[in-house]
This record gives sequence, structure tokens and C-alpha cells, in this order.
Amino acid sequence: MENFVFQNKTKIIFGRDTENQVGEEVAAYAKKILLHYGGGSIKKSGLYDRVTASLKKAGVEYIELGGAQPNPRLSLVKQGIDICRKEGIKFILAVGGGSAIDSAKAMAVGVPYSGDVWDFYSGKGMPEKALDVATVLTIPAAGSESSPSSVITNEDGDLKRGLTTDLIRPVFSILNPVLTFTLPAYQTACGAADIMAHIMERYFTTTQCADFTDRLCEAAMKTIIHNVPTCINEPENYDARAEVMWAGCVSHNDLLGTGRNQDWSSHGIEHEISGIYDVAHGAGLAVVFPAWMKYVYKSNVNRFVQFASRVWGIDIDFHNQEKTALAGIAALEKFFISIGMPVRLKEMDVGADRLEEMADKCTGSGSWTIGGFMSLDRNAVLEILKLAV
Amino acid sequence: MENFVFQNKTKIIFGRDTENQVGEEVAAYAKKILLHYGGGSIKKSGLYDRVTASLKKAGVEYIELGGAQPNPRLSLVKQGIDICRKEGIKFILAVGGGSAIDSAKAMAVGVPYSGDVWDFYSGKGMPEKALDVATVLTIPAAGSESSPSSVITNEDGDLKRGLTTDLIRPVFSILNPVLTFTLPAYQTACGAADIMAHIMERYFTTTQCADFTDRLCEAAMKTIIHNVPTCINEPENYDARAEVMWAGCVSHNDLLGTGRNQDWSSHGIEHEISGIYDVAHGAGLAVVFPAWMKYVYKSNVNRFVQFASRVWGIDIDFHNQEKTALAGIAALEKFFISIGMPVRLKEMDVGADRLEEMADKCTGSGSWTIGGFMSLDRNAVLEILKLAV
Repeated sequence: MENFVFQNKTKIIFGRDTENQVGEEVAAYAKKILLHYGGGSIKKSGLYDRVTASLKKAGVEYIELGGAQPNPRLSLVKQGIDICRKEGIKFILAVGGGSAIDSAKAMAVGVPYSGDVWDFYSGKGMPEKALDVATVLTIPAAGSESSPSSVITNEDGDLKRGLTTDLIRPVFSILNPVLTFTLPAYQTACGAADIMAHIMERYFTTTQCADFTDRLCEAAMKTIIHNVPTCINEPENYDARAEVMWAGCVSHNDLLGTGRNQDWSSHGIEHEISGIYDVAHGAGLAVVFPAWMKYVYKSNVNRFVQFASRVWGIDIDFHNQEKTALAGIAALEKFFISIGMPVRLKEMDVGADRLEEMADKCTGSGSWTIGGFMSLDRNAVLEILKLAV
Repeated sequence: MENFVFQNKTKIIFGRDTENQVGEEVAAYAKKILLHYGGGSIKKSGLYDRVTASLKKAGVEYIELGGAQPNPRLSLVKQGIDICRKEGIKFILAVGGGSAIDSAKAMAVGVPYSGDVWDFYSGKGMPEKALDVATVLTIPAAGSESSPSSVITNEDGDLKRGLTTDLIRPVFSILNPVLTFTLPAYQTACGAADIMAHIMERYFTTTQCADFTDRLCEAAMKTIIHNVPTCINEPENYDARAEVMWAGCVSHNDLLGTGRNQDWSSHGIEHEISGIYDVAHGAGLAVVFPAWMKYVYKSNVNRFVQFASRVWGIDIDFHNQEKTALAGIAALEKFFISIGMPVRLKEMDVGADRLEEMADKCTGSGSWTIGGFMSLDRNAVLEILKLAV
């Protein structure tokens, strides 16, 4: 096990009707906030009304900024920063999924910074301060509700980049599984693929001896595999929705990554796809991950045998472990297909004509490599993209 | 899944040589502290010298109070409270195992309280304030390094009682597995029994549908079962010591108990044994837990079948599930025996002459029941104690 530091300050308030506590929770921090959300779905569902009623009851004044969309945009972030500065706001409440939350986190680091907030995403600097962010989660997927991460798309150049700092872990997050009852099957499945990817980015490690976190990762993956089909077939099954919501949150707060080398190349590659094509992040990951696995498994067959055996319950073929490894990858692909995810680029209407461009952007035209499990250069990334066609 | 609130503020600093960071970490909070520890072992091992050197280097003044012992005493707590008040100390650093930490936590709530600190342990009130506590852990067992709990023994009446409040979660804890290399086999095993008990108190639940936390509990139990024998056979095996140390910590920060009804009757019963006889808490739990299981398993055979199958890998006998349930209990008992734990009271030189007294103290002479998995009255507790003879 490798040395690590782990602290997760986020207070999780989980369960039925918990969104009605939001005003009281916010009031402990601020009396005037930015209320940030996505499209109209929270208005249609009545969630907007319940949240704003709770804020009003607690005497919290709010300025609204809607419009966060999948692959959240830098331009909206800058708009939010301007509002917070003008209104003297120190607290942002994001109501929605990962897009609204990631967008709010970007505003939180941007407000107290005199330069361009994109600096933090392009690696030109790290934030030293941030406003407080809190969330009411509506989509279990990104794990942003207790993670130290935010991913933003800069429309100027189709660049999708991430920032990780404990400063942007939300101070509290409200998770009510009932709010996910109305999620369409496709979005539920995209979320599941994203959660599986967050676990697998950590699971596929070169760290020897990370037994406890291996088993935690396996526990989380089995929870997703077991419960997501129920969420799709019975959208109002509270228990299945609750399992996915809680597992999705824990899967990305980095408990599962403690003491381990992690990979993250599939996320890197997927960001290039959704940066250009605006496909759903989860769907992109369902395409990239199996392709990545097929490219890298020979570098550590053992680990893929463990994945096949412990996660998918596949009998190990002791005469041909590679066969077992491949059976595990096939099981993952089959699972993604079974919940309605694409597993090839063409299923998302992404052609093969810009693969070189994506491989370039992902590796600075070959000036750096990606991936902790196996180091991938530009050509390796290109090969993986070709396997995904 | 039941509604819950979960927040764990403790910063975990894990790995080799991390105790040398203690001064710097403390200095962010206080310049004058109480340094609390147990007997002489930290002086013999050199840990005391490294911790005090780090404190001095960071300009942190410390007043010492040693003498914390297993089943930590109220009298020492009161001594610590007096020192903190007299010296104007607002921060307590505990160096040691659960005893030093629990003792420090009791001081932390006692200092700002005008009444008797025992009020908080005897259920007469809940603390509203606490000093900051931090730890350098030397024994993976109690989980007190990131838990909201503290257990203290009042010598006046042999009463051992607990307090649970988020106020007493340590602000940081330093976990260096190397510090556990010198733990004797018996203490290592006692720690393992304590950790297993913390998981099982949560695992045996009446909550339907707690799939994710079930699997997390199973992951933690398998980690302990797999790694503790290695710790005993190869005391300086870093990886095995690290797995047990990290699993022990996570097992009692209550992540594994989120959204679940929990039991805790075995802890309640064991406290009466170690309150009178001063046996090691872990050893007492190794005796009580199998006895408790034998008494309660019929109330939910299914859960014991899951325990047998998933934790111990026992083939389910579908014609006789009770047989499978009993095989799981036997496997736990066999595991405890294999690591040198007692599984009967007589092995700890505890006779059968004070069982009635213990059953009385545990249930207020029959005025209350204990246990979330199965409600136990005075007679049930007595029957369990008899099964443990």
C-alpha cells in the first residue's frame, strides 16, 4: 500500500424528503447564495419549488443561474463568477447532476481568483481559495457531490479538462433517491457506466497489495451491477435507486483509491470524444473502457483474472488465464449492452475521421503519456480509439 | 435503506514515517497541547522521541499525561481535565491505542463542561462543545482514531459506558503500519476481534435492502480474515499490517453502518465482563459474539446464511439452511481460535458466579432491553452469558 492522505469533509444527508432540509443547512453558512441548476427538469418535477421554499423559510436570499448542461461550459462558469462578485455571494448551491455541480465548483474557485479560471483547468495554477459549494443531487453518476473534482469544457477549442482539489469538496450534499425516480433509462445507464468507470479507474492499479481497497472496489461494482437493471426495469424502486445513489457517491470520494496507484486514461480519452461530439460522458466511457481493457490486459493478466472472478463470478480457467481475463472484459461489455449503453463509437454516431485529432489532444501531440496502470503514448491512444470504432 | 446523515471530518495521514508530520499538523490548531499516552511502550519503541521532536520543531509546547490503560479510567480522565483547565489547553494529542484515544476524547468533552464528565457516559446529558483531539495510532482495534465514540470505565461501580457524538471525531489521525510491527500476537488478535465485532455489530441488521453496505462489511471482514494471520506469523509484514490498520479504521467510522439498523448487544454484554474483570475488550468480544450468534440466529437464518456464504465461502446447503448458518458461526469461532483468541469465558479465567450481576447491569435489572437485530431482555442476556461459559 502506498502512503496517502484522505479527508472527506462533505456531510451527506441521505434519504426521503431530505431536500426540505436544504434551507436550514445553507443558513448555517450564508444568507445570500447563488442557486445554480441545469435545464427545466427541476422545475417540472417540483424540486425547484421545494428547494426555494426551504431557502425562503430559512431566510436565505438566492440569485438564480440555470442553464448548466452536460459537459458544462466555461462561458456559463464565467457568467456565474460575475454574478457572485457583483452580488457579494460566498456560497453556491448546485441543484442537479454532475454538470451543475462541476459548474458550481468552477465558479467557486473562480470568484476569489484574479486571473482566468481556466488556468486551474489547463494546469497553469492551483486555486488557493474557494467559495463554499453544496448540492442537492438528482443524478447518481459523476460523484461530484462529494468528490474533490470538477470537469469543464472550454468551447474555444473543444477542450474538456478537469481540476482536483479538496477545496471544492461540497460542504454538504443532499441525496434523496426519490429524486432519481424520473431519470430516463438511458440516463440511468449513463450514470451507471460513469460510476463503474470511477471504480475501474482505481481498481486497475499497479500497486501490489491493496487488498482492502480492492475488495471495496469489488463491493461497489457488484452493487452497481446488481441494482442498476432493477432501476431501469422498476424506475420507482426506492431501494435499488438508493443503493446506486450511495454507491455512486462513495465510488468517487476517493476512499476506494486510497493507497493505490490509479489509471484514469479512459477518462482522459473519453474527454476528447465528448469534448468534440458532446456525447454523454457515461456513454463515452462505456465505449472507451472495454477498448482500453483489450489494449492493456496483457500487461497484467492477473488483475483482469481477479476482475473476472471476483466481480463477475467467472470460473477461472487455470490452464488459460488469458481466456478468463477476456471473459471478464466480455462480461463488462455485455453488462453495458444489457442496460442500453453503446460499446462502439459508431453507435454514438462518432465516425473514425477525427481519431488522430483526439489522440493528439489527449497526449499533447505525443508530448506526454497518460495512464497509471499502463503508460499510453499517442499511438497507444490511437490504437485504443481504433478498437472502439 | 434508512435515512441517514454521515460526515467524517477526520484527516487520515497514512503510511511510513508519517508520525514525523505530527508537529506540523498540530501547529495548524494549537501551540500548547496535552500529550496523552499509555504506558512505557511508546518510550521504549522510540515513538515518544520522534513525536516530541516533531512537536518541538513545530514550536508546539506540550504538557504530558501518561498512564492510559486498557479499559481507560474515569479518574485519569478527570486528572487530564484538571491539567487542561489549569494550563489553558485547547488541544489533546493522544499517542497510543483506543484507550489513550478514548481517554483523550473524554477529557475533550469534560474540559468545557461545568458538571461531571461522567454525565455524558451515564446518559444524563450530551456535550455541546469539545476540545480538538488528534491521534497517532499504535494499535489497530478500537477504530477510535476516526470514530465518534469513546468508552470509559468508572471504577466506582465497575461501570464501563460509551459516548457517541461527532464532536469527538479526531481532527486528524496518523496511521503508520510500522508502529504496529512490535504488537505482540495476542494484542494483534485482540485488535482483530474488536474490528470484526465492529463490522458484525453493523452487519447483523434488520434493515431490508442494504446491499452496498452489506458488501462493504463483507469486504472489510474478508480483509481482516485474510490479513490478520499474516500479521501474527510475520509481524513485520508491512502490507498485511497496513491492510488491517486501514480496514480497522474504516470499519468503525460508521460508513459501514450508514442507512442500517445496527445491533451492538455484544458490545453491551462485553462491557459488563471487562468492566468487572478487566479482560481485554477484543478477547471478551471473541467470547461473546459466537454466543450471541447461537442465541439469535434463528430469528433471521437468512442473514446468517449470507454471512456463511459471502464471508466464509461456505457452500449453502439449500435443504438445510440452518446448517449453513451454524457453519458460519463455527467458522468465526474457528478463526478466533486460530489467531489465539479465547471463545469461552473460562479461557479468560472468568467464572460463572457473576453472570446474573452482569445481566442486571447490562439491562438496568431488566428495566431496558438491548440489541437492534434482536431485542434482548435480562434473561436473554443471561442465556447468552451462559452459552459463553
